[in-house]
Amino acid sequence: MHTVGRHLIAEFYGCDSGLLNDPKRIREVMIHAAERTGVTMVGEIFHQFAPQGVSGTIVIAESHMSVHTWPENGYAAVDIFTCGGIDPRPGFQLLGKALQAKSFRMQEIVRGIAEDVDENRHLLPEDVQLMCHTAPVRETRKA
Amino acid sequence: MHTVGRHLIAEFYGCDSGLLNDPKRIREVMIHAAERTGVTMVGEIFHQFAPQGVSGTIVIAESHMSVHTWPENGYAAVDIFTCGGIDPRPGFQLLGKALQAKSFRMQEIVRGIAEDVDENRHLLPEDVQLMCHTAPVRETRKA
Repeated sequence: MHTVGRHLIAEFYGCDSGLLNDPKRIREVMIHAAERTGVTMVGEIFHQFAPQGVSGTIVIAESHMSVHTWPENGYAAVDIFTCGGIDPRPGFQLLGKALQAKSFRMQEIVRGIAEDVDENRHLLPEDVQLMCHTAPVRETRKA
Repeated sequence: MHTVGRHLIAEFYGCDSGLLNDPKRIREVMIHAAERTGVTMVGEIFHQFAPQGVSGTIVIAESHMSVHTWPENGYAAVDIFTCGGIDPRPGFQLLGKALQAKSFRMQEIVRGIAEDVDENRHLLPEDVQLMCHTAPVRETRKA
């Protein structure tokens, strides 16, 4: 069993609350992020909650993308899980800008398993590529 | 910003390949896992790939669940992301049995952010609850 995918897990803070509560616009930015990442969309669901909040998932040929928003906190939880050697980070960077995030946290987890990891021992932190950043989004915008 | 959710990330190995390539049965076991977890489903997508493999996501009132299968490797990647204080582990345990997994890896990540984490420092491994196990699924079955 080889490593099969990269799972980028992002928390966006200080986002535009109006945008976070608008399922049409959330869908648009997620689709834009999918396009920027270069993945192939095969299905989608977006749902608005009462009194507020949007959830959405996009199944892609390379796995999935998801978003959950808490407009009352300016917070969005985003996942971009890609296989096939596709880098999920362009989508992440686009979303930080599109959601007007003031800051973010991001980590990336390797899915599947490296052949050299013995199944009889615990998964250790060094087995997962945990790449975390907290920074103002303006730093991302320079990229 | 409080911690808002628990994101359980599971890799199931040695699963029944026929089951992993059957979108109807994969949908059934995911819905069963959602019911066991006690979440509320609001939408779903399941897709079969050629020549093989199934992907599916279920948007739930508490965030989402997802599955991606590689029948050729007997491997399934599963996510159960719950907010509202719901424990994602009953769904995980059901899936291990239902997919007939011989072994698994599981980790759980806290989504959102604890109030006491300074946004100006990097997210460190101790900031995420990384609870990992590798064990034959028969151990799970005792629970």
